Amino acid sequence: MPGEFDLIRRFFTRSSARADVVLAVGDDAALLDVPAGQLLAVSTDTLIGGVHFPRSTEPFDSGWKALAVNLSDLAAMGAEPAWATLAISLAEIDEQWLQAFSTGFFALADQHRVALVGGDTSRGPLTITVTVHGFVPPGQALRRDGAGVGEIVAVTGSLGDAGRALQHVMHQAVIADAHDADLLLARLNRPTPRVGVGLALRGIASSAIDISDGLAQDLSHVLTRSGVGAQLQVAALPLSAALRRQCVNERQAVELALCSGDDYELCVTIPPQHWSAAQSVATACGVDLTAIGLTTAEPGLQLKLHEESFVVAHGGYDHFGML
Amino acid sequence: MPGEFDLIRRFFTRSSARADVVLAVGDDAALLDVPAGQLLAVSTDTLIGGVHFPRSTEPFDSGWKALAVNLSDLAAMGAEPAWATLAISLAEIDEQWLQAFSTGFFALADQHRVALVGGDTSRGPLTITVTVHGFVPPGQALRRDGAGVGEIVAVTGSLGDAGRALQHVMHQAVIADAHDADLLLARLNRPTPRVGVGLALRGIASSAIDISDGLAQDLSHVLTRSGVGAQLQVAALPLSAALRRQCVNERQAVELALCSGDDYELCVTIPPQHWSAAQSVATACGVDLTAIGLTTAEPGLQLKLHEESFVVAHGGYDHFGML
Repeated sequence: MPGEFDLIRRFFTRSSARADVVLAVGDDAALLDVPAGQLLAVSTDTLIGGVHFPRSTEPFDSGWKALAVNLSDLAAMGAEPAWATLAISLAEIDEQWLQAFSTGFFALADQHRVALVGGDTSRGPLTITVTVHGFVPPGQALRRDGAGVGEIVAVTGSLGDAGRALQHVMHQAVIADAHDADLLLARLNRPTPRVGVGLALRGIASSAIDISDGLAQDLSHVLTRSGVGAQLQVAALPLSAALRRQCVNERQAVELALCSGDDYELCVTIPPQHWSAAQSVATACGVDLTAIGLTTAEPGLQLKLHEESFVVAHGGYDHFGML
Repeated sequence: MPGEFDLIRRFFTRSSARADVVLAVGDDAALLDVPAGQLLAVSTDTLIGGVHFPRSTEPFDSGWKALAVNLSDLAAMGAEPAWATLAISLAEIDEQWLQAFSTGFFALADQHRVALVGGDTSRGPLTITVTVHGFVPPGQALRRDGAGVGEIVAVTGSLGDAGRALQHVMHQAVIADAHDADLLLARLNRPTPRVGVGLALRGIASSAIDISDGLAQDLSHVLTRSGVGAQLQVAALPLSAALRRQCVNERQAVELALCSGDDYELCVTIPPQHWSAAQSVATACGVDLTAIGLTTAEPGLQLKLHEESFVVAHGGYDHFGML
């Protein structure tokens, strides 16, 4: 007498090639074998339809992003992804939606050899909670509390793209150019977790965080936990050509780079003597790593445009604009 | 610039006495140390307000139950609980509600030395997803696929109490007696995960499952996975005195015991030569263990009232009565 929601489990049940999955979906719990000499890194994040992603988001993208935001947390820890669980509630069973959602989820899972080992499905408002598990050797995790004074603050990739795309989706400022719209929307809907760079920066970076709520807000968490401050040169922020083209001026692009969310790039601190190594490993991963400032003994985050203070019109990103 | 939802994290941040928690709440991921020689058991379950529990449920009970249903999965695996993550979405911040919810969650967590190691909070429809982690030595887990032919089918505690309480809460059949109402409602709202019995039945039981969707439905999962059938004597089902008093006849009580959900008792199969040991360890845990039937080579689940077939009026429990 299976419930109708048992049926949708078939969209999420696949055999895994991972030898460390002793027992996957189908029993009361999964049984997993953490390699000797590794700590387990665990992170969980929820995406709610209409809150964390627009209701118009394609199901493929929802599946991709639900895993991506979690893998981004492992990347920021310098952890190697291994397993995930998925709890999903849906207002109704829509097989086409589920097929596309699971295709998006597994497209990213396969890139990182992540096995889906458990889950729960129920009827309710569209809510997706993923819990990811990875490995990191003791003492090698990239923590938020490791930044020292006089270190280089750097970010991967480019910032602000997802924020600009969200303005388009929310009809706040439409992007007329179709090619730029595609580029920027892909950054919002199918973010790239920087897993490879995170792993490569073990032993090189002194701290790391992923940028989910905007650079200014997320970097502030690192500064507070590490007991340092930072001075950033906003002219150094990495801005994509598409973002520059689709902003009315540089100030708008810079404010998006500082304050809009959903970029899922890494913000790291690098002791100066490791900067060359950091650039090398980022290049080897095919990812830009841009120095944007320095940590300071004076607490707080100072923003500079050349010699002047730079003041942003608004603060962080609280995810509730879509409610 | 913390978001308002950062504020509620204080309700869920506590220092842990567990030495295996290297890093808990506050970074991108928790860092955890699985003991050498143990497999990691992982399970996740979601509770949605108005679906899995009535909206009128006290917040203390919601917190307790969200953890209890997950610990019940570890119990059914014979795993020792260790850590949990909590993802919760709330329509609005209500500090009194959050205080009571976290008090309920930690009341049960403390009983089992479970550390809360991570979480996510957001604004949205009331949804609670807990992921639990525990340990079990290789080869000792109580799986669903281990039942053999001619084994004793047994259940812990009593069945049907939560189902009767739900009828009361849903105003389908009010329980007039206040004392019985309290007893039965406690079974619905604050279920007792059978963690100790699950651990004690390692090496004794051949299979186990927890009863969340009704005995008939959950036992059927074991039978299918194990490739056996079972014959149950419905007259042997353990029924509480309160349930008997609050049913119009024995048939109603038996049908609740077979088909209503939310009991969170264990259903196990025990090879006959282990039955005496199973009874001893259950007694040592202070939990009744009642033999209710035998597994058979013939597939399927047969219900008998003495020599006659017993036919239930309705099937399993699909959780959607409250939508």
